[in-house]
Amino acid sequence: MTDINKKALQMHEMWQGKLEIVSKAKVNSKEDLAVAYTPGVAEPCRKIKENKEDVYKYTMKGNTVAVISDGTAVLGLGDIGPEAAMPVMEGKAVLFKEFAGINAVPICIDTKDTEEIIKFVKQIAPTFGGINLEDIAAPRCFEIEARLKEELNIPVFHDDQHGTAIVVLAGVLNALKVANKQKETVKVIVNGAGSAGIAITKLLLKAGFTNIIVVDKLGVLCEGEEWMNWAQQELAAETNAERLKGSLKDALVGADVFIGVSAPNIVSGDMVKSMNKDAIIFAMANPTPEIMPDEAKAAGALVVGTGRSDFPNQVNNVLVFPGIFKGALLAKVSQITEDMKLAAAYAIASMVGEDELGPECILPQAFAEGVADCVAEAVKCVANKEA
Amino acid sequence: MTDINKKALQMHEMWQGKLEIVSKAKVNSKEDLAVAYTPGVAEPCRKIKENKEDVYKYTMKGNTVAVISDGTAVLGLGDIGPEAAMPVMEGKAVLFKEFAGINAVPICIDTKDTEEIIKFVKQIAPTFGGINLEDIAAPRCFEIEARLKEELNIPVFHDDQHGTAIVVLAGVLNALKVANKQKETVKVIVNGAGSAGIAITKLLLKAGFTNIIVVDKLGVLCEGEEWMNWAQQELAAETNAERLKGSLKDALVGADVFIGVSAPNIVSGDMVKSMNKDAIIFAMANPTPEIMPDEAKAAGALVVGTGRSDFPNQVNNVLVFPGIFKGALLAKVSQITEDMKLAAAYAIASMVGEDELGPECILPQAFAEGVADCVAEAVKCVANKEA
Repeated sequence: MTDINKKALQMHEMWQGKLEIVSKAKVNSKEDLAVAYTPGVAEPCRKIKENKEDVYKYTMKGNTVAVISDGTAVLGLGDIGPEAAMPVMEGKAVLFKEFAGINAVPICIDTKDTEEIIKFVKQIAPTFGGINLEDIAAPRCFEIEARLKEELNIPVFHDDQHGTAIVVLAGVLNALKVANKQKETVKVIVNGAGSAGIAITKLLLKAGFTNIIVVDKLGVLCEGEEWMNWAQQELAAETNAERLKGSLKDALVGADVFIGVSAPNIVSGDMVKSMNKDAIIFAMANPTPEIMPDEAKAAGALVVGTGRSDFPNQVNNVLVFPGIFKGALLAKVSQITEDMKLAAAYAIASMVGEDELGPECILPQAFAEGVADCVAEAVKCVANKEA
Repeated sequence: MTDINKKALQMHEMWQGKLEIVSKAKVNSKEDLAVAYTPGVAEPCRKIKENKEDVYKYTMKGNTVAVISDGTAVLGLGDIGPEAAMPVMEGKAVLFKEFAGINAVPICIDTKDTEEIIKFVKQIAPTFGGINLEDIAAPRCFEIEARLKEELNIPVFHDDQHGTAIVVLAGVLNALKVANKQKETVKVIVNGAGSAGIAITKLLLKAGFTNIIVVDKLGVLCEGEEWMNWAQQELAAETNAERLKGSLKDALVGADVFIGVSAPNIVSGDMVKSMNKDAIIFAMANPTPEIMPDEAKAAGALVVGTGRSDFPNQVNNVLVFPGIFKGALLAKVSQITEDMKLAAAYAIASMVGEDELGPECILPQAFAEGVADCVAEAVKCVANKEA
């Protein structure tokens, strides 16, 4: 066990839960009780009954999100069940509070059925101002999110998809500046066609990238391949215009950007050498990247990002979700739209000043001041345009 | 609008939610983040995956309850929907924290279907150490609770039923001492055969009361009456041995105890006069009791309790649920049993010393020190015996 893991275990045992629910209302007297509870509480109830929107005025709904998981795709641990997923969901809720002042409730549920999860979230929705879906396995996470976006009037955001996609886009945009390349012409390889890889690809397309090839364990996603699930089939139709078949190694030849959300050590120095000059490598497998930064650099990569905090260029979606939800809750939007995601990515990219920007600095630090507010402003700005 | 209602509305607007979710884990550095979130958080996840019981060791589950309502029977307001029920559920959560140090999450759900509610609670159960059902209409609240008790391994407690029943039993036991009457021989009238009335009756029977007549809007519950729902039919078989028919007025003649969980002003002075000497009146309709205390006293009642804090003898289930859950969570019981409820009632009754006990003092004050701990100890004591 690493030192961090040991310390994490000790601290979790000490905390017995990383969250606490505290009361803003004091109840030290009969009058306090009459105001916070009966009979006074009936008055805000009546107001909300008359006008449902008043729930934002008199309750915590407007600043509270649910972090909902079925425990099926937790970190690199896979399908570990709802109880074992709790420490992660609590951690996520901690970040919501610490980075954006948002109340977040971890909710781990005992069903893996798509329809059941959709129904569950719809039933719980009156309580919350937004829903953060977390660590739900692909491809059902896509249908769950899509249906909930259609059927609910509060924002629903699957962070594993869009949080990752947004921070990757922000990082790639800045890396392209460093490499002096253009999004319209670079060849991008996305490796790993699960929830994150698919969302990254879609957002890059939306942002104006044109030449993307997606690869999964069984090879390049190409129309007609029979092993693809429905989400991969859809993606194949929008990517790989030249209908390349083959392996990751084949795909990387002549590529400018590698984005890995896949497995440790699957990219070799030779594969990086086969890429174009000044290659950009995002090797985000955790905790061991697809290729270690020093090896990638030695093979000619110009910019290397990973998921880890102990290397430069950590690609961390804590830069994204607190601000996205803060903006969405403040603007009371009913959906987080594609344009809001793009705006969030550009906002994050803009947090790195011209003077700082370089191969070792393409993204703001997780603890950089003002990131969440900057993202929130960007989201609100789009919300105002769309309203 | 009363002053209290005005103040309640102002305060609710200021609070925008009476609860806040705060982090015990500090995240001010990369190491903090690595301990509270990735990669360190994977370690407690792995432990829980190996041994599900470790969820109590590493997460908030063991000290967190869900306060779940469908918003169909909220205070005296009726079926006002999940959004409008939120202020009450938040208030309940405030009391859990302030009186027992328990984290409570208000969850208002958008379904009124018995089977859907049962399924929802089962799905959300991994997250919580206990379930407090609240303001769910009768008779479906009975089936929901009964089924969940059978199917879940965490305590499920419908406070409107059992919290009320326990505090009523505690109050009646002390009132009988004041009146020098015996539970085995007194005639008790329970008016209002909804969730509270039915639970009160069952707990009194369990406690050794033998002569109880239950009355609802259409008259006395009596075997064979066709207007009764299934829960009332069951109760009729255990009460009213003499098969009395008729009205509340008929039933009250010669009664010793009146317990009202019904409607304002439906008991007259003459009806109290028709009861036995030193009658005990619990007139708990809110905010206007079945009969005002001064009128009941003038008609010969010895002890009068109400639901209100501005009269003596407030019958308030805040004396009950914080301690019940505290004991249940500490003892990690899978159910709150009938014996635990009885023990809780006796514990509450015992909080009134011999020297204080009198017509104006049959229950401890809501803010009396040590009530929750006393109740929790009683529950734990039974749990140890049952283990």
